[in-house]
Amino acid sequence: MMVYNQSMNNLPDDPVLALPPRILLGPGPSLVDPRVQRAMLAPVVGHLDPAFLKVMDGVQQLLRLVFETQNELTLAISGTGTAGMEAAVANMVEPGDAVLVCSSGYFGERIAEMARRYGARVETLRRPWGQVFDPDEVSQALQATNRPRLVALVQAETSTGALQPLEEIARVVHAAGALLLVDAVTSLGGAPVGVDRVGIDICYSGSQKCLGCPPGLAPLTLSPAAVQKLESRRSPVTSFYLDLSLLRRYWGPERAYHHTAPISMVYALHEGLRIVAEEGLEVRWARHLRNAGLLWQGLEALGLELHVEVAHRLPPLTTVCIPPGADDLGVRRRLLDEYNIEISGGLGELKGKVWRIGLMGFSSRPELVELLLAALRKIL
Amino acid sequence: MMVYNQSMNNLPDDPVLALPPRILLGPGPSLVDPRVQRAMLAPVVGHLDPAFLKVMDGVQQLLRLVFETQNELTLAISGTGTAGMEAAVANMVEPGDAVLVCSSGYFGERIAEMARRYGARVETLRRPWGQVFDPDEVSQALQATNRPRLVALVQAETSTGALQPLEEIARVVHAAGALLLVDAVTSLGGAPVGVDRVGIDICYSGSQKCLGCPPGLAPLTLSPAAVQKLESRRSPVTSFYLDLSLLRRYWGPERAYHHTAPISMVYALHEGLRIVAEEGLEVRWARHLRNAGLLWQGLEALGLELHVEVAHRLPPLTTVCIPPGADDLGVRRRLLDEYNIEISGGLGELKGKVWRIGLMGFSSRPELVELLLAALRKIL
Repeated sequence: MMVYNQSMNNLPDDPVLALPPRILLGPGPSLVDPRVQRAMLAPVVGHLDPAFLKVMDGVQQLLRLVFETQNELTLAISGTGTAGMEAAVANMVEPGDAVLVCSSGYFGERIAEMARRYGARVETLRRPWGQVFDPDEVSQALQATNRPRLVALVQAETSTGALQPLEEIARVVHAAGALLLVDAVTSLGGAPVGVDRVGIDICYSGSQKCLGCPPGLAPLTLSPAAVQKLESRRSPVTSFYLDLSLLRRYWGPERAYHHTAPISMVYALHEGLRIVAEEGLEVRWARHLRNAGLLWQGLEALGLELHVEVAHRLPPLTTVCIPPGADDLGVRRRLLDEYNIEISGGLGELKGKVWRIGLMGFSSRPELVELLLAALRKIL
Repeated sequence: MMVYNQSMNNLPDDPVLALPPRILLGPGPSLVDPRVQRAMLAPVVGHLDPAFLKVMDGVQQLLRLVFETQNELTLAISGTGTAGMEAAVANMVEPGDAVLVCSSGYFGERIAEMARRYGARVETLRRPWGQVFDPDEVSQALQATNRPRLVALVQAETSTGALQPLEEIARVVHAAGALLLVDAVTSLGGAPVGVDRVGIDICYSGSQKCLGCPPGLAPLTLSPAAVQKLESRRSPVTSFYLDLSLLRRYWGPERAYHHTAPISMVYALHEGLRIVAEEGLEVRWARHLRNAGLLWQGLEALGLELHVEVAHRLPPLTTVCIPPGADDLGVRRRLLDEYNIEISGGLGELKGKVWRIGLMGFSSRPELVELLLAALRKIL
């Protein structure tokens, strides 16, 4: 056998030690509160240790507060936001099911793609990227299509910066006897979601946006009606890892082993959620809106145009049109190299057309808005 | 709207602060090296930040060293070991494919279950839990069954503590024109795996066992033949999150966005793998074997019987028969409460019959063996 010790000579310098202190103002991850990083240092214990089960219980209780729900089936999926999306779709869709996806952005298209992979007959209602849907058109689509039992849409489109109003659409969807699935990846903790108040049946998010934690967990909640759908499935969920009928037995009183939870990330999420609860949801939403307002004002003062009309702008994530003559990549590279600031380019249809600026969680602070505006003023 | 600040009054004490300093001697998670915990404190940067891409490159290079492979498609799945298992199965199985699963434990059964969920026609070759397979019986099963193109088995059965020899079986499987899928969750970094040397086509593991990191990532590697199978699929992988044809575009030179990687966990894995490389693979395997030997000797000196015959024992994970009259739960509870030591009970068929004792990664140390033996001596 080879002596693998010799390969140490070829080890590169340690790139973890070289990581720069970025100011994260992109679409996520956002800056992590130092309290959250400290929580990750808590000793790792077993995934069935009574001390860990208490942390899980705390996460569930705090998630219900942040989701504004009484839903029993409220937990965190052991993956990033995309895993949350897939858990929602995979568990609510069976082969042959008719599903209506309202899509006006990259992540709406992703939901449709996932639903197709899990065997749904997907109807897609589309709007130009950055616009929101009207309850009437959703109602008409529900009548025109093949009686879908599930309507999916993105509340906070990370690709466009639009915030979809949900109250009226929820009524229309429920009147048609369907369940409402909502992507709240870029809103939870930074803008009202209101699962019970609005009437959302399936809602998921990510830890690394407005909750101020590192990426790695996807909060998810199911209404009693969604649980009923889960329990009346004719076939098992194709994904074992994301099967909520198994996961709920681990997160519930049974504590049946399913997989080894990402222990340190659960500590991080617990601390991030405590910080949300301490600040208070409404105070936190107001902070996100106030700092977004500063940004919008400042960008317009620089002569820049915002992509989404003001009535439907998503406070945690702003899309600003790249001005004529500006070099998309060049500007972002200078922000990164000269100011350690990360903002992001456009995704999909909006690639090369907008920049995406996130003010989420610990990143939503007026001094960071000032810094970004000052940097842009010099670079542009 | 309700004022959610009020709910602060109902917040429980912080269970993260109350976490005890467990000595993790169960089947995983194992103790985390303090260097790994420090790495998790490195600043979170974006998942497409050039500084992060360097860390990803480092992880890939170090994973190839630990897997003992030149495979280009070597990466870490953004989930725990079960996600690695599912990524392996989901990408290698198409509906209608014949698959042979050799199962003599809980995780062999889990592979079969996943393959069925992804539409395979699964043949299962079974052995009593704790035994290993003979190349001849695998060869016979390959001839008897419906020409499977994939044979799956667990090298290191976490439920039984048996270590499956692979060299001969790999030859038999390849002679039949099939690919070999191997679960190395409880061996990688603690016992030889030798992907290229043995001829394993698909191999996965978990971060939280012999690699000494917290749970949250699943290393995975695919041979060129397995990549060819991936590229010649007739249908897309049902799971979007685990679709390797998309994931390889993020981990490869294209750097196409797929999902937001669990940044801090990737830092942790990078540091854990550096520690493995510094120690040297062979030295590390020898350490795991030496400490396991101390444990086996000590348990037998206490009059206890080991479940697996010595020739097929897995050094990182030992199963010991619960002696007549001993209270399974009561003994484990006393170890936890009086000594802060976690060992685990049996899983599945072996529940109530064995205890599972892990000596993995940072937990594989002679002083911890001494402590456990001393505690057991007092309690039993």
